[in-house]
Amino acid sequence: MPRADSLAASKRGELALLGQIRDRAAKGAGSVRLGIGDDCALLRLRPGEEVAVTTDLSIEGRHFRLDWHPPESVGHRALARGLSDLAAMGARPVAAFLSLGLPRTLTQVAGRGRSWPGPSLKPWITRFFDGLMALAEACKVPLAGGDLSESPVALADIVLVGAAPRGTALLRSGARAGDLLYVTGRLGGAAAGLEGLAEVSGAVYEQSGRLKPLRIPRKLETLLAPHLYPQPRIAQGLWLRRRGLDSAARVTSAIDLSDGLSTDLAHLCEESGVGAEVDAELVPICAGASLAQALDGGEDYELLFTAAESARMPRAIGGVPVTRIGRMVRLRKGRPAVSIRTPQGLKALDSMGWEHFS
Amino acid sequence: MPRADSLAASKRGELALLGQIRDRAAKGAGSVRLGIGDDCALLRLRPGEEVAVTTDLSIEGRHFRLDWHPPESVGHRALARGLSDLAAMGARPVAAFLSLGLPRTLTQVAGRGRSWPGPSLKPWITRFFDGLMALAEACKVPLAGGDLSESPVALADIVLVGAAPRGTALLRSGARAGDLLYVTGRLGGAAAGLEGLAEVSGAVYEQSGRLKPLRIPRKLETLLAPHLYPQPRIAQGLWLRRRGLDSAARVTSAIDLSDGLSTDLAHLCEESGVGAEVDAELVPICAGASLAQALDGGEDYELLFTAAESARMPRAIGGVPVTRIGRMVRLRKGRPAVSIRTPQGLKALDSMGWEHFS
Repeated sequence: MPRADSLAASKRGELALLGQIRDRAAKGAGSVRLGIGDDCALLRLRPGEEVAVTTDLSIEGRHFRLDWHPPESVGHRALARGLSDLAAMGARPVAAFLSLGLPRTLTQVAGRGRSWPGPSLKPWITRFFDGLMALAEACKVPLAGGDLSESPVALADIVLVGAAPRGTALLRSGARAGDLLYVTGRLGGAAAGLEGLAEVSGAVYEQSGRLKPLRIPRKLETLLAPHLYPQPRIAQGLWLRRRGLDSAARVTSAIDLSDGLSTDLAHLCEESGVGAEVDAELVPICAGASLAQALDGGEDYELLFTAAESARMPRAIGGVPVTRIGRMVRLRKGRPAVSIRTPQGLKALDSMGWEHFS
Repeated sequence: MPRADSLAASKRGELALLGQIRDRAAKGAGSVRLGIGDDCALLRLRPGEEVAVTTDLSIEGRHFRLDWHPPESVGHRALARGLSDLAAMGARPVAAFLSLGLPRTLTQVAGRGRSWPGPSLKPWITRFFDGLMALAEACKVPLAGGDLSESPVALADIVLVGAAPRGTALLRSGARAGDLLYVTGRLGGAAAGLEGLAEVSGAVYEQSGRLKPLRIPRKLETLLAPHLYPQPRIAQGLWLRRRGLDSAARVTSAIDLSDGLSTDLAHLCEESGVGAEVDAELVPICAGASLAQALDGGEDYELLFTAAESARMPRAIGGVPVTRIGRMVRLRKGRPAVSIRTPQGLKALDSMGWEHFS
């Protein structure tokens, strides 16, 4: 017979951990009037701003693997997903919230019996926060609250609250036929890194025959970085949103590349009611990646955006290259909404991000 | 050897489900300028308001059980937890966001092979949303976004965004020695209901010998209701916050009863730097519950608050009774911070909510 206490394991360990997290989180400064410790956090916006909110759920085995991803990368990537959504709207980050569910072993010090066998003695959760807080500090976004629970699988739900002056946020729905299509950075690096990780991990498996966390060989760090530590384009999003205010040279729409160019461009086209033609030869490909990875690989977290043809676009924003890769076109019956021009001609660009694994 | 595609199961089913959810969610009205469908939702506050944010994670086996809780209850309770946090601050609900992780079986129609054997043919997820949306509509809070992922265990992280005029939110930290201590509603009902559920569930187990979802007998519905369908005290929190604006008769602090009176009162005392004396004979006990359940049982989601002794408090707010149950006192060395007066005298009231299961 099930017992009531199976519903409610000890909260004592949680309270101690929450204390540690609270020490690392926002005390109530800047936009955060009240951080962790009350029923809600309280945030203050500037006059005339509206609130942008996004939530992203990362689950062990689906979005990360304990035997592949260093804990610092899991924390970094969870926060990066949310920050990238704010970047795509051109919103400034105001505060982050984290709901974390972890097996007990991940909250214990390594080397003491049942704990997660990490290469350092820090508990997994501490290293997770090391990664998350390093990105939070780099992007000046305070951690203002969250929830912590024991869970049979590791999971992290990140919530980002941002702000933008009323009516100015960049939307997916504003692209018009004739606009030019741009992308920040270089594409395919995250997919190439994931492939590299899978190969290294396979080698680890073959040698040890059991689950153990991966040590990343130093020579692979550059290849794996775009996957393990993607950089959300906050500064670029803010620049584009401000440029959007200038009606003569408007940025008309934006989306972040989380599912892959072919999928996210289709979303942008659908929301805007237009089509797009990508020029394969213009797509900026990350070193070590293929064109297929640049088109269909997810999790690059670059920005894809459109602007009026008359808009003068710089070659880089804040040190990150900006590349024109195509043009928005009218939807026509019998023609694919999204197509790609190669030396062999124009063909449909099917949405292959994420879904091509299925 | 692990394969990359184990990281990325099909998103196709998710997209169809997201479409259904989108149909039930906010289209962009009221405070929600932009709902599901872009990188972020956009919310508009009234001039002079600040933002309240809370996140609450509910995980199968810890916060609910598939074989005990009807899916409607799981959805209702997830949202109720977040709304209750807003109520405790006196914030008006602006929007809810939901990150949902579910095993594939819970998204499929019952009766077709592997799906969850519910009493109706609706998939578990649809019934979950039925429960969540019914409470959302009753509390006039739009669902403005979220995330959906396949997960080995069912989990729901609810995010509530609320608003209150700058500087007016009720905090845990404002109680002063001499203030009177009040509670809304009647206590212990959720714990009594959970115990009833465990007993009914035990009977089911004994009869069937295997995991199957519970049908709640009609005669038990009243007993189980406070556990399965708790009512967040939004209207009462708003009333108390407005009362807090009147400096002559101020409500000085508030917290919601999620972990149990003995635990939550200790939190309030700690944040306020005061002690409290509860009068056992004044504690309003729910029909069917014991004093112990009223003191230590969690998840009643009533409001516990303090007000100046001079404040005139009504007997009920919006039909929900308000009861004075004690008084805040100065902290003194060698005396417990929280104590309870019984016919046998004054004794320490230890924090037993949740933790007494450990």
